[in-house]
Amino acid sequence: MEKTEIKVMKKILNLNDTIASSLRKDLTRKRILYLNLMSSPGSGKTTLIEKTAAVYSNRIFVIEGDIQTTLDAQRIAKAGLKAYQINTGPFGGDCHLEAGWVKSALEETSLEDIDILFVENIGNLVCPAEFDVGAHINAVVLSVTEGEDKPLKYPLAFRNSQLCLISKIDLLPYLELNLKELRNNILKINPRMNIIEISGKTGKGLAEWTSYLKNKYTEIIG
Amino acid sequence: MEKTEIKVMKKILNLNDTIASSLRKDLTRKRILYLNLMSSPGSGKTTLIEKTAAVYSNRIFVIEGDIQTTLDAQRIAKAGLKAYQINTGPFGGDCHLEAGWVKSALEETSLEDIDILFVENIGNLVCPAEFDVGAHINAVVLSVTEGEDKPLKYPLAFRNSQLCLISKIDLLPYLELNLKELRNNILKINPRMNIIEISGKTGKGLAEWTSYLKNKYTEIIG
Repeated sequence: MEKTEIKVMKKILNLNDTIASSLRKDLTRKRILYLNLMSSPGSGKTTLIEKTAAVYSNRIFVIEGDIQTTLDAQRIAKAGLKAYQINTGPFGGDCHLEAGWVKSALEETSLEDIDILFVENIGNLVCPAEFDVGAHINAVVLSVTEGEDKPLKYPLAFRNSQLCLISKIDLLPYLELNLKELRNNILKINPRMNIIEISGKTGKGLAEWTSYLKNKYTEIIG
Repeated sequence: MEKTEIKVMKKILNLNDTIASSLRKDLTRKRILYLNLMSSPGSGKTTLIEKTAAVYSNRIFVIEGDIQTTLDAQRIAKAGLKAYQINTGPFGGDCHLEAGWVKSALEETSLEDIDILFVENIGNLVCPAEFDVGAHINAVVLSVTEGEDKPLKYPLAFRNSQLCLISKIDLLPYLELNLKELRNNILKINPRMNIIEISGKTGKGLAEWTSYLKNKYTEIIG
């Protein structure tokens, strides 16, 4: 019985990886930089996208992954961006997105005049990291309220990301967080991680973030 | 193929539920109140247990669930409590605990002179809620930094809990959180939810929490 199960799982993962690779190529060809944002619930992913809209205006497309509600897609639309909401609730409440879901969403979507595609993955620091959704860049967002130890306790999300955004740094004065230790723990898990400290509230770090996006666009899309 | 998979999954869930029921009965018989703490990463579950230690001293036993590291068990031991660390990392990095894991941990454990068993589930607001670990009380901890919308977006954890601890309320002056809206959203998902607002930093709400534990002990254990 166990053997059969492993066989099935492997087959599904292979299928996901195949779709992910083809998505990545397809978006490169369409000259769209594709980022997958992963984090715990409430780390500030949606706020980050809202703030990015101010720079890129309507050249951003957002796929929102949530178990329930279209709240995030509504926020994104209010920021003037096009958004597509995936709800996994009706399909068993999946705790992560897979490449096939993104592919289906994009098939219903016009990507004309779009430079950047964000997938806002389901708020979960564990499972999304196990599934390649075909992005050029995986970015993990970690709020300073979550503590220094999280990269060590949830290593896969940090190992499989190229960028870590440390969010809500405006709250640092009211926390006992040791920022240096947090940065060290991130680099322990992933020595090549790019780290940007941001605050959606004060705007600190947003220039560094948009300049990162511009550099990566040139580097990956050309 | 799909049929087979569903069959397997159902069998596993049934097995989990059977173990969970027997655990619950066993702990009632041993006169131990058993709570399962669920939340996003970094909501303050470990801090809550540390603070509870000050009242119950060494009559608490804690099972720590983490993918990697024994950091939390070390913190709990420092607080003078007995702890058992489950690491799911070597077993595929499971995103939740199941009743069988808890059962195995308890088989290696002396529960003499213990009044309360806490399972600190893996930091994940999605998957742990799908698995009964046999607790008398499921408690979901939600930090005020996570936002008003989380009960609506992650309903299962709130639907399957009897208690919601709203944590880190000392940070409220620095956030734009609407506490009344958060409470309404919790009650929308679960109208019978007990809600306690706490701060590990200032100690606010801790008396209400320990008095909740004492009342539940009398009610459930007698």
